[in-house]
Amino acid sequence: MNKRSIIYILGWVLIVDAVAMQIGTITSLIYGEKEAWYFVLTGVVSAILGVLAIKVKKPKNMVLYQKAGFASTALSWILLSLVGCMPFWLSGEIPSFIDAFYETVSGITTTGATILNDVEALSKGMLMWRSFLHWLGGMGVIVFLLAIIPKLGGQQNIFLMKAESPGPIIGKAVPRMRNYATMLYGIYITLTALEFILLLFGGLNVFEAINTSFSTAGTGGFGIYNSNAAAFDSYYVQTVIAVFMLLFGINFSVYLCLIARKFKQSLKFEELWIYLGIVAVSTAIIAFNISSIYKPYDAFHQSFFYVSSIISTTGFGLTDVNKWPELSKTVIIILTFIGASAGSTGGGFKISRIILLFKEVRKEFSLLVHPRNVKLVKMDGKAVNHDIMRTTSMYLVLYIGVFAISFLLVSIDNMDFTTSFTAVAANLNNTGPGLGAVGPVGNYADFSILSKIVFIFDMLAGRLEIYPLLLLFAPSAWKKS
Amino acid sequence: MNKRSIIYILGWVLIVDAVAMQIGTITSLIYGEKEAWYFVLTGVVSAILGVLAIKVKKPKNMVLYQKAGFASTALSWILLSLVGCMPFWLSGEIPSFIDAFYETVSGITTTGATILNDVEALSKGMLMWRSFLHWLGGMGVIVFLLAIIPKLGGQQNIFLMKAESPGPIIGKAVPRMRNYATMLYGIYITLTALEFILLLFGGLNVFEAINTSFSTAGTGGFGIYNSNAAAFDSYYVQTVIAVFMLLFGINFSVYLCLIARKFKQSLKFEELWIYLGIVAVSTAIIAFNISSIYKPYDAFHQSFFYVSSIISTTGFGLTDVNKWPELSKTVIIILTFIGASAGSTGGGFKISRIILLFKEVRKEFSLLVHPRNVKLVKMDGKAVNHDIMRTTSMYLVLYIGVFAISFLLVSIDNMDFTTSFTAVAANLNNTGPGLGAVGPVGNYADFSILSKIVFIFDMLAGRLEIYPLLLLFAPSAWKKS
Repeated sequence: MNKRSIIYILGWVLIVDAVAMQIGTITSLIYGEKEAWYFVLTGVVSAILGVLAIKVKKPKNMVLYQKAGFASTALSWILLSLVGCMPFWLSGEIPSFIDAFYETVSGITTTGATILNDVEALSKGMLMWRSFLHWLGGMGVIVFLLAIIPKLGGQQNIFLMKAESPGPIIGKAVPRMRNYATMLYGIYITLTALEFILLLFGGLNVFEAINTSFSTAGTGGFGIYNSNAAAFDSYYVQTVIAVFMLLFGINFSVYLCLIARKFKQSLKFEELWIYLGIVAVSTAIIAFNISSIYKPYDAFHQSFFYVSSIISTTGFGLTDVNKWPELSKTVIIILTFIGASAGSTGGGFKISRIILLFKEVRKEFSLLVHPRNVKLVKMDGKAVNHDIMRTTSMYLVLYIGVFAISFLLVSIDNMDFTTSFTAVAANLNNTGPGLGAVGPVGNYADFSILSKIVFIFDMLAGRLEIYPLLLLFAPSAWKKS
Repeated sequence: MNKRSIIYILGWVLIVDAVAMQIGTITSLIYGEKEAWYFVLTGVVSAILGVLAIKVKKPKNMVLYQKAGFASTALSWILLSLVGCMPFWLSGEIPSFIDAFYETVSGITTTGATILNDVEALSKGMLMWRSFLHWLGGMGVIVFLLAIIPKLGGQQNIFLMKAESPGPIIGKAVPRMRNYATMLYGIYITLTALEFILLLFGGLNVFEAINTSFSTAGTGGFGIYNSNAAAFDSYYVQTVIAVFMLLFGINFSVYLCLIARKFKQSLKFEELWIYLGIVAVSTAIIAFNISSIYKPYDAFHQSFFYVSSIISTTGFGLTDVNKWPELSKTVIIILTFIGASAGSTGGGFKISRIILLFKEVRKEFSLLVHPRNVKLVKMDGKAVNHDIMRTTSMYLVLYIGVFAISFLLVSIDNMDFTTSFTAVAANLNNTGPGLGAVGPVGNYADFSILSKIVFIFDMLAGRLEIYPLLLLFAPSAWKKS
């Protein structure tokens, strides 16, 4: 592998991390908190190491093929989390290292699961850094690097983007990668800003509105109040959040089409319609199912909010859904696994993968009925090649494998079935809340260190879609060829 | 489709059913029960209809291709269950028709889940018929027909066998199908007889030994006592049952090799070793995990018995495993999904499928590391062709799809998550007991009619491995081509 290139990328990651966490410094300074120092300290050390890495080990060529691209991405995310957790840990606001690391990974992978019993005890600077981790992880750090470092933005480095972008890439021709990365970030910033403004209109103060927008945009789910999104007791505010959760769960290619004024094409994404269809049906089922517990409009409101929250894998909560009837909870569990669209900031198995697998099954079935009728699987009108079909099925197998092993390890803690099962699901799918003790009013504080390590692996595996992370643990990947 | 051939097969199924249920008549006569009449009545009507079907609609050629082969198999199993449930229903021993139908499908699919609160209230004839349904379904009715009807046993009708034999068929060359079917039944009868004799030695009376042997052989799990296998309070008897559950969960090809004195080849089946390995590891984990609840040997005994029971999808129970710690329960849930070997009488996803998928993932992964290294997936030393790999992945997708939809529908009953989830798993994998209210000391009496219909579909889908059953509901399959 091109180790120098990997170190070069990791150097840049350290620099980005150092700069990014100064949002904590600024916030702390505004609120007159002494915690500013921890951000400055970590930032300076991180920046020095970063500059050393990119100056001393300057690579001759910057081409990263699949293996090195995947490895750099996985290492970047781990490094980012290790450095990012320092302010939480050094300041003593999260005294246990593994907890601080868990919280940071949960932030950057946009999971939004917390080990904090009392979120409100954190200083404003730490809360802001925590929310900003969501925003940073949502669109991706490597995508950000591709946009800002000309050297990296070449077409050859498509594997870097592949490793970080969620979903199967279906013959996506990216003509100029650097432009593409810049445009993605442009849309991301615009939508975040829009939500921020709309939340200000709803009466949120600037601090609340920024944090909530960051958390929504990354489809994260960290709140700044112990009651999470229920703290904003307004239909308007909660509806704005619900709608934006949905918007950030849409494939960003749809927005790219809209910008390019290809309105017709933007409506032709099958994944978009299936996504909205699932949201509509799930909202209807739950609203009907919980109608006896709530007033008529509230049943719909609660249902729509939580469906948006779970399918987009954000995980904001309004109420303790453990009290809802079982049918609603089953819908929630299924939505947790389905997840958002490919190319969005959301996690989960991804709707496009489900569509592809469904179509392949249909094809298999039609072969059974008409053995001589060979059909092609098509998506958005284009034929899908066999490699994508194969990797999609294999992703399903890997995903089940990671789930089963995690579930086994976590159950050593002897929590009840509902808690263990949905906890693994909520971490692997980057959702955040599960059911039982890890429901929207619960948290992950009571799990053992072993379980937290498993969850950290799951969150990273979910965000990077398993392959890049597993690659790091394959000895054969590190042998010289 | 060749409708005449399908009717011909269904005619034979009615005749077999009519003859088979006379085991109930004989048992009832021995015990002087008036229930004998219900078996005679159903048998006579069924036999007349059967003879009419094979005489009146005699087909000119008996070749059944894939579609017709699959459809006949699915229809045969449904018809068999409809006729088979009549004695239970007509006699009033199971007053609700849907319950009687559920119990019969549970028998023939070797699931062993019961809707009866008090099994001991059944007459001896009904108990015997119930156990015999397991035995009949274990090796398969169509396989039986292939063995006894010369007309059907031709090589062209391989699809009939394919539809009923569990597991992916990996280039299995079956030289003479009729001989093959006869040999399978020969092994099946021998092993059943062996267990029967060993159980007699253990002090069981003839009625107990016959019923238990039938139930074990089919990997069913119906007991004749309310306390199920715990009624036989003897280490020896319970160990005999545990060992035979394991034996019936092994691919019968292993026994065919042994008979042919190909001892070396019989040890080369990868599935056999993985199966035994999973049993050993699971037994060790559970024995260790429950060691604080039981005396040392009892912990091992309980663990080994239940691991054998679940992985073979038999479902005999000794104790209420709901009281075991969560880790043990998680192992049990995972074993429920894994299931037994291909070509055995057991259900579940099948170990050979898991091996194939694991190997395909490993290949995919090695492609990532060494893009130019094209490897073939091999099983038992032979290359596996792409069609089998594709149908195996697609089976996984279908299986998850059926599971998710069933889980959703069953949760309308508002049972707790553990109960609904494991109930669907236990029916789809033909295991019988789940956890919670459907644990080894519980039953399925309290579910709604809708849930019972879903379970009936799941049991048949699990036993016939989905495709044949889904085919019946595809309108395109019934159009004239």
